[in-house]
Amino acid sequence: MLCIRDFAPTDKKQNIMENIYAERIAALRQMMASKGWDAVVVSGSDPHASEYPSPRWKQVEWLTGFTGEAGDVVITLDHAGLWTDSRYFIQAVTQLEGTGVELHKTRVPGAVLIPEWLSKNASTVAVDGLCQSMGAVQEIEEALAHTHPDGDFRVVDIPDMLEVFWNDRPQIPATPIATMDVECFGGISRLDKISWLRKWMMIEEIDKVLLTSLDEIAWLLNVRGNDIEYNPLVISYLLVSQDYVKWFAKKSAFGATDPDTEDSFNELRMDEVEIEDYDALCFSLSDADSGERIFADPSTLNYHTYKYIQESCPGITLRLGKSPVILEKAVKTSTEIEFLRQTYIEDGLAVERFLYWLEHEVAARGEVSEWEASEHLTSLRAEIPGYRGNSFENISAYGANAALPHYSTPQQGSAMIRPQGLYLVDSGGQYLTGTTDITRTVPMGECTMLEKEDYTLVLKGMIALSMAVFPRGTAGCQLDVLARNALWRSKRNFGHGTGHGIGYWLCVHEGPQDIRQNFNQQPLLPGMVTSNEPGIYREGKHGIRHENIVACREAGVNDFGDWLEFETLTCCHIDTSAIVAGLLDSDEKAWLNAYNESVYRRISPLMAPDEAVWLRAKTQPVQ
Amino acid sequence: MLCIRDFAPTDKKQNIMENIYAERIAALRQMMASKGWDAVVVSGSDPHASEYPSPRWKQVEWLTGFTGEAGDVVITLDHAGLWTDSRYFIQAVTQLEGTGVELHKTRVPGAVLIPEWLSKNASTVAVDGLCQSMGAVQEIEEALAHTHPDGDFRVVDIPDMLEVFWNDRPQIPATPIATMDVECFGGISRLDKISWLRKWMMIEEIDKVLLTSLDEIAWLLNVRGNDIEYNPLVISYLLVSQDYVKWFAKKSAFGATDPDTEDSFNELRMDEVEIEDYDALCFSLSDADSGERIFADPSTLNYHTYKYIQESCPGITLRLGKSPVILEKAVKTSTEIEFLRQTYIEDGLAVERFLYWLEHEVAARGEVSEWEASEHLTSLRAEIPGYRGNSFENISAYGANAALPHYSTPQQGSAMIRPQGLYLVDSGGQYLTGTTDITRTVPMGECTMLEKEDYTLVLKGMIALSMAVFPRGTAGCQLDVLARNALWRSKRNFGHGTGHGIGYWLCVHEGPQDIRQNFNQQPLLPGMVTSNEPGIYREGKHGIRHENIVACREAGVNDFGDWLEFETLTCCHIDTSAIVAGLLDSDEKAWLNAYNESVYRRISPLMAPDEAVWLRAKTQPVQ
Repeated sequence: MLCIRDFAPTDKKQNIMENIYAERIAALRQMMASKGWDAVVVSGSDPHASEYPSPRWKQVEWLTGFTGEAGDVVITLDHAGLWTDSRYFIQAVTQLEGTGVELHKTRVPGAVLIPEWLSKNASTVAVDGLCQSMGAVQEIEEALAHTHPDGDFRVVDIPDMLEVFWNDRPQIPATPIATMDVECFGGISRLDKISWLRKWMMIEEIDKVLLTSLDEIAWLLNVRGNDIEYNPLVISYLLVSQDYVKWFAKKSAFGATDPDTEDSFNELRMDEVEIEDYDALCFSLSDADSGERIFADPSTLNYHTYKYIQESCPGITLRLGKSPVILEKAVKTSTEIEFLRQTYIEDGLAVERFLYWLEHEVAARGEVSEWEASEHLTSLRAEIPGYRGNSFENISAYGANAALPHYSTPQQGSAMIRPQGLYLVDSGGQYLTGTTDITRTVPMGECTMLEKEDYTLVLKGMIALSMAVFPRGTAGCQLDVLARNALWRSKRNFGHGTGHGIGYWLCVHEGPQDIRQNFNQQPLLPGMVTSNEPGIYREGKHGIRHENIVACREAGVNDFGDWLEFETLTCCHIDTSAIVAGLLDSDEKAWLNAYNESVYRRISPLMAPDEAVWLRAKTQPVQ
Repeated sequence: MLCIRDFAPTDKKQNIMENIYAERIAALRQMMASKGWDAVVVSGSDPHASEYPSPRWKQVEWLTGFTGEAGDVVITLDHAGLWTDSRYFIQAVTQLEGTGVELHKTRVPGAVLIPEWLSKNASTVAVDGLCQSMGAVQEIEEALAHTHPDGDFRVVDIPDMLEVFWNDRPQIPATPIATMDVECFGGISRLDKISWLRKWMMIEEIDKVLLTSLDEIAWLLNVRGNDIEYNPLVISYLLVSQDYVKWFAKKSAFGATDPDTEDSFNELRMDEVEIEDYDALCFSLSDADSGERIFADPSTLNYHTYKYIQESCPGITLRLGKSPVILEKAVKTSTEIEFLRQTYIEDGLAVERFLYWLEHEVAARGEVSEWEASEHLTSLRAEIPGYRGNSFENISAYGANAALPHYSTPQQGSAMIRPQGLYLVDSGGQYLTGTTDITRTVPMGECTMLEKEDYTLVLKGMIALSMAVFPRGTAGCQLDVLARNALWRSKRNFGHGTGHGIGYWLCVHEGPQDIRQNFNQQPLLPGMVTSNEPGIYREGKHGIRHENIVACREAGVNDFGDWLEFETLTCCHIDTSAIVAGLLDSDEKAWLNAYNESVYRRISPLMAPDEAVWLRAKTQPVQ
């Protein structure tokens, strides 16, 4: 799944409801006037800087109707603005119509960002410090200090500021939780993970670690929940000292009658994990001894908690830095990799069955809707033992729809897939034994020469990266051009990253590694699992993406260095009917033919006979 | 020329002279004792942080006998140490024998660098602030402050500290200077360059710019000298305000009878460049008005000047940053590029004649020494109109010698080139119309399969980079893997950068761009001239490097972006006799055949008939 977020198309109800947003903003302004605030900042994030917030924290959407996933709002007494980037310009203009909220463009030349804008238009600024990282608020404070050298400015932290107006605001989610059986399904025990963290703390001379990122907590405790759609997370904080592990989560989850939750709770207690209430974090922090050094990661520590530590915990010395859990989580163990291999075969089988079904249905009925296809794919995944839902919303996009980076297949009125051109399907599952993510672009019949060329050039990129061998220490940004070079030489390109890290029954996007045109210095390490997904998008025409998931592994040591390479985990054939064979060199053909043959070898024994015959035909070598 | 510096092999006289170094260190210690210094730092650099210092500033060599180009020395009353990196470990051990100076390894795990070492072993440290950048000394001060929190430490700046002992110390060089005729030989007039800099100063709200880097000064003033071997520089400082341009150089150069120097001097005066004495910089700075903002680049501003400004110029506010001249100098004008094309043809003709001569001489005589070959190549370059010397010391290396990254061809007893295996020649010239740099690896006869494979894989890398097309904004580090991928896939590699910037009748190494495995974010821009020189080195066997010089140029704009590509400037055939044709794909063969054909087309009309026949045979297409 590519690293650009999707959005739901504009809700038709919006125009009817537009006064609601104006009314909400008016109510907020009334509060501002009574409190003496010049400006209020409303953020689109949650208290844990999660990539996808749960409905409770969709505050920007509640206040303005804007549903894009990146956007912050500033309200003053005479201005309301939404700051967002080019991915959402068109959507914002449509959705903000009639609300009085103006679009402020970010990531454009000369952009004035929120801190600078505030510094010129306000001196008392209220923020919901729960939903802003400490870094974001510090930037506001620094900008205000710059324009108010005499110090006559204030940033006020008002947690849950909108709660008083938002009658039907969703609760903090508290879904059932499950612990992972690492003996059965790979991984490291929570006690070993805690020991590792405590050792790190000793080396770094740190007394306590405060984890605030939800996937880091889930990984460390080997717990999974369902608090955020597609992301098996539990809204919580974790505090680890040499003496205790305190998990601050919504206790209601454990109070439920769900027997798995009850068992998980007991298992955690057996491992001496204390369960505290989600809201009890600050109280617990205030208990710190004088001189205690507490570590937190500023990219996910929210301003409210930061402020609390600074003001109410004089004993604490805050040590800020990049959480060590991020890297440890990214490097999968050899048993996890072994489980992933099997999981990707089962997931690949579901996708192969889907492609078989789709081809036959379109042939029989003449057309199948994108939505029906998507639902059918999900139903096939749901049959897999250990399936725990999808890892993101399926992208099921035919023809020109596949060229829209934000395309979300609508339930009603989705496009019909017909026996010509290209169909793109990007999907993945959550399983007890890992998270999957795969994109296949499927020639449904006759394709244009441009479609074929694009299809082949993107495939060349995916193959080049798949075949890469590189010395230990190489970062993803140093390999990215391999996935782009064939396209670039034809002056074609794609606007998203080539690869993102993937969790193990966790988030489908995780760091610290990636493969893209940036300067991320994190080396690729054996055990890291990353996507390999070049693409191309032609507005109004077609979109193509080929995505396999690869695991980095050792490839031997010689006089020239210590070598690494990729093992492709994804197990699903690549359609050869749209390939321009003359554009592939002999190495690329050899890779493609060997890959398709290995897919046939692994998948066909699990298939029905007619499916296996079909797959045999699909995996004939390209000459 | 690759970016690893060469060193002269250990001098045989050293053992006889070793007591001299011990005596010099003893004399320095006597001074230290009398002055109350715990430690003295002696640096291997010059007052301008030049890549190659002139003999006057080879202080480390004078004091210890160590001739490596990277190395700093610390002397205390009971310890003498040389800090250098792995390139020089073996050399240092040999050269320091008997001097009492111990090797401290840098760039190894757990290395204790000079600041940290000093902080534990000294509290009063003397430095020659002229030969240390302000950044280097600040690190020492910070380390001392850390171990002496009560502030009882001192860093003393003693410019030219060794002068009292060094009787025959070379003078500051003052060679004849020449101004560039930009109308005849390309480039921007000095008045236009000065106007550009003054505009930049206005935008940045800076009153004066102090340029300390010698190639920046030479570029801005359109002057060239010969103060450093192979580098056409003038030892000087430059101070630019809105009202004046003051050039602080050794006036003796202008006092000479050399008519070109006299003319240059008059030309500079006509353009209102005031010539001041090299030593008058500080005096001139002290003249600053109160509140003046002076810009300097800390990477080339020496500590002595920095300290002077801080202590004796209370009116000056120092604004430190990366000099804007570096980027402006790197982007060549279209007329400069046009002159470079012609220069590279003339330079290529010299190299072609050399290769013709070498092949025939080895055939006739059975062998030719590396030294004779090198001298002959220089003599052929010297015939080119506008030749102003070589741009670095020729590397003329046969067989296993080519595998030594530091190989310097000895005048006496150099290896004999015979009609088998590989000969590597890396060389370049300085011309009125640009600087050249080219490496050819020449199969002299029968080659082993390993030599052929290596030769072909390195060539694949050079071709891949030559063919690259990339969007505007791409940095060299994002392309580097193209030059390595073919080698990497065979688990082979090279330990130097793939490309460095090249000056225009200036230094053969310049920034800010490069192509290597780093994270240098400087995008490649149209007009930048960079080397493309992958290689491979097998100790005791052979060394291979293929080096062309490429200019970045525009390649059109389309829906996918604004595209750039490389134009190869170097014009000298690539020998095809050692190519394993099966390792080249059709694109690579097409590039190679087109390149060799274009070399033939451009060079053969300038050749004698027998040479042209030879080149025709050498440039037959690979099938």
